Amino acid sequence: MYQATTSLGYAAVPPYRGPMKLEGAPKGASVLILGAGIAGLVSAYELRKAGYKVQILEFNAKAGGRSWTLRGGDEFTELSGIKQVCRFDKGQYINPGPWRIPYNHYAMLDYYKELGVAIEPFFQVNYNAYVHASDTFSGQPQRLRHVQCDYQGGVSELLAKVVGQGTLDSSLTKEDQQRLLESLKDFGALDSNYRYSKSLVSSARRGYEIDPGGGLMPVASYSEPTQLGDLLKSGLWAAISQGQLYEFQTALFQPTGGMDMLPRAFERELKAVLQFNARISRIEQTDKGVTATYTDLKTGKTQHASADWCICTLPLSILSQLDINVSDKMKAAIAAVPYDTAFKAGIQFKRRFWEDDERIYGGITRTNLPINRISYPMAGINQPGKGVLMAAYTFGADSYKFTAMTPDERLQKVLEYGAQIHPQYHDEFDNGITVGWHRVPWSNGCYGLWTEETRKEHYDNLCQIDGRILLAGEHASYIPGWQEGAALSARDAVTRLHRRIVGSAS
Amino acid sequence: MYQATTSLGYAAVPPYRGPMKLEGAPKGASVLILGAGIAGLVSAYELRKAGYKVQILEFNAKAGGRSWTLRGGDEFTELSGIKQVCRFDKGQYINPGPWRIPYNHYAMLDYYKELGVAIEPFFQVNYNAYVHASDTFSGQPQRLRHVQCDYQGGVSELLAKVVGQGTLDSSLTKEDQQRLLESLKDFGALDSNYRYSKSLVSSARRGYEIDPGGGLMPVASYSEPTQLGDLLKSGLWAAISQGQLYEFQTALFQPTGGMDMLPRAFERELKAVLQFNARISRIEQTDKGVTATYTDLKTGKTQHASADWCICTLPLSILSQLDINVSDKMKAAIAAVPYDTAFKAGIQFKRRFWEDDERIYGGITRTNLPINRISYPMAGINQPGKGVLMAAYTFGADSYKFTAMTPDERLQKVLEYGAQIHPQYHDEFDNGITVGWHRVPWSNGCYGLWTEETRKEHYDNLCQIDGRILLAGEHASYIPGWQEGAALSARDAVTRLHRRIVGSAS
Repeated sequence: MYQATTSLGYAAVPPYRGPMKLEGAPKGASVLILGAGIAGLVSAYELRKAGYKVQILEFNAKAGGRSWTLRGGDEFTELSGIKQVCRFDKGQYINPGPWRIPYNHYAMLDYYKELGVAIEPFFQVNYNAYVHASDTFSGQPQRLRHVQCDYQGGVSELLAKVVGQGTLDSSLTKEDQQRLLESLKDFGALDSNYRYSKSLVSSARRGYEIDPGGGLMPVASYSEPTQLGDLLKSGLWAAISQGQLYEFQTALFQPTGGMDMLPRAFERELKAVLQFNARISRIEQTDKGVTATYTDLKTGKTQHASADWCICTLPLSILSQLDINVSDKMKAAIAAVPYDTAFKAGIQFKRRFWEDDERIYGGITRTNLPINRISYPMAGINQPGKGVLMAAYTFGADSYKFTAMTPDERLQKVLEYGAQIHPQYHDEFDNGITVGWHRVPWSNGCYGLWTEETRKEHYDNLCQIDGRILLAGEHASYIPGWQEGAALSARDAVTRLHRRIVGSAS
Repeated sequence: MYQATTSLGYAAVPPYRGPMKLEGAPKGASVLILGAGIAGLVSAYELRKAGYKVQILEFNAKAGGRSWTLRGGDEFTELSGIKQVCRFDKGQYINPGPWRIPYNHYAMLDYYKELGVAIEPFFQVNYNAYVHASDTFSGQPQRLRHVQCDYQGGVSELLAKVVGQGTLDSSLTKEDQQRLLESLKDFGALDSNYRYSKSLVSSARRGYEIDPGGGLMPVASYSEPTQLGDLLKSGLWAAISQGQLYEFQTALFQPTGGMDMLPRAFERELKAVLQFNARISRIEQTDKGVTATYTDLKTGKTQHASADWCICTLPLSILSQLDINVSDKMKAAIAAVPYDTAFKAGIQFKRRFWEDDERIYGGITRTNLPINRISYPMAGINQPGKGVLMAAYTFGADSYKFTAMTPDERLQKVLEYGAQIHPQYHDEFDNGITVGWHRVPWSNGCYGLWTEETRKEHYDNLCQIDGRILLAGEHASYIPGWQEGAALSARDAVTRLHRRIVGSAS
């Protein structure tokens, strides 16, 4: 097992410690698992490996929960009753929920490996994608490479000017200031005078006015950097750090073929214990066991499922509406976490104009328009034919504005915004589908919104074993909104439950 | 056709302008093409589409030239006579020559698309890969994310300290200085006091001491940044800019399955006109046509091939040794360009320990050891089983040192160096193969080394149509060492030759 060692040489305790080895499960001990999203699937998978008898109740007709993929032929009916049918071509898809796997989400990567589900590289950052704000640079989208290189160059030039003036003497030795100067020249692509100027070094970073060619083609010419003052006023520099965050740094991946590929693999493993179409209404525990009351959505009949213990992975947005007899503290915790919402639009276009016309292969364009961003597909890059853009992905208030419209109006609005960045939108539009997460029946929102205060007051209470019930899911983790949070939460719940069971049995 | 427009709104003239449309080729006009690397293949492909009669002579028994892939069962015999047999498992490979396709190599990307050859994403930068120098940080490899975030944070803090002190007043207005401060906080992951400190914001960039987890797992803790002075002394900051260069910025790609996939596709198109195993000894032109004399390596017989015109794509390192009657100026140009060399080692390991143990999925580790870098494979990521590392890729003098050894000794040396970064090397070694480009019979080096002076004196002379002969290849381009240089050079040669032919025929 891998132990992260710090530069000081001692081993940190990582939250993920490789394959679970739970030994000594009492014969016949049973666990009821509510919800077949990542947390429920992981819980069932690990408990079953440890020898427990498990049963999963799931609202949908398939596993995955928010880990969901829409393909041609799929239907989606919102809480409002609005029904959309996805009309994408074969092979095209959109992931309305989670869509990426960072390299540091070890638990998830290891489940992909263990279950033989293929992943493929995902570009979070694309230097040739755009950064756009409607109120700056006359609304013209800027290439990220220009914004990043020019900001870095401008900042490096400013600092280089200060070196040797005495201002930095309290922070760095004279020798280190000389090293700093040398490093800034490289970091900022400065010229021999330590200026960020129109030059070979800056063009070799931000790109040329005319690219170098072959034979007797027109001679290359350098490009003119943007002035630092203009960049600072534009605010576009905020895009640079986005791809440097721990969870968005390279390497990132996506499951080949869609986010539901791993749930499908879990489903194959857990087929025998999965009960679909089960809408839970009540969770009741005694000192002997736990019983869930649910409606079988196929027959309309009320049913019951019981076990010695229960891991409940329902989102708090759902759980808070159900009858459950847990302690007041846990009840308070369940009620304390509001859910964020998000809106995504997947639009199929007749051709991959972003590749053909604009040479944007994967990655994300950012904008201050309500669509928030455009993500270019990693699948099918440089191949002829159609492609699906994640043409909007926004959180909070804008999500409600979009869902207030009809599905057709939503798409029109997304097209109208997107065309400010890609004028080809109108000509190339084929069809699309939209998801507003506050209207998704099985989650009523997209993820639990914790604050520092609610964490302090409620988090530990939420995660305790309450009699014979304990909770798991991204909401019961410090990695909200990510599958890894759900998986680690489930692994922790399973581990603690197993210890409790073994302890009480012996 | 895509026109790059600058921020000033006028169209630059890109060297690559989409599909070639050459019209009016005289019936029966013929062109002899020497060499079936990228330049030769592109020349033949485009001339044939334009209606010319073409024939290609190629030294090897297959197309591709330096665009070459070694797989299990392949043999490689160096100029020295040393023969190596590649013993990789099925599906494993190494590209001894070019291995990446940047997003801005438009000609190459379009040939991949036109010929239906799949490409897949390539990570140049991996924040979790290492930066290593044997003489700094006690020889301990550092994660790139630490070096990059800490350098950026340290530099941002220094500049933030200066803001408002008056020093920057000549460069920026007071308002812009305030904006600068705000931007540095974001760019550098500074805390609320504009310091780069052990904090949530810096850990959310460089990574944590203990990662956030789920349930009641150990609480996350922040990591301790490296001091700027230590980073400056280490010189490791030089790694940051590497992935920001125009040709190494995301998006980059590699051909799925190996670099020879495109040559193979060209070969299928050009099968009828490709003559393999042809070692050219002489190229002679008259005012009527061009004749190449060659040895058929299968039969040992001397043969001749003639055409109205000739595009010669042989590397200058080879061409300079042949008999060719061109102008003195072109002869001088041919003699003026020395060739660089490079050394690559491909090593197959019994397991993908860099993924399993160190969570490095693709990307490149850099070191000051003679192996220069380690590149982690993009194919088969997160899958069980073996993997091949590009375990050395170095230029110049170190290449000669490696090839001075026997193949086994070379591998031992590569293992010895690599084990300083990955101690698993010794246990997991399976087999390997090495290529020193100065010993590759069909190129005697890896690419043409131009200087500002030789460009000035010789480049245009090298590229002129000399009677009935003209040259193409990466050496006849401003993108040395890249396939794109070869392709653009060939497209320019074909275009000019066509104009000359049509002009002289009309």
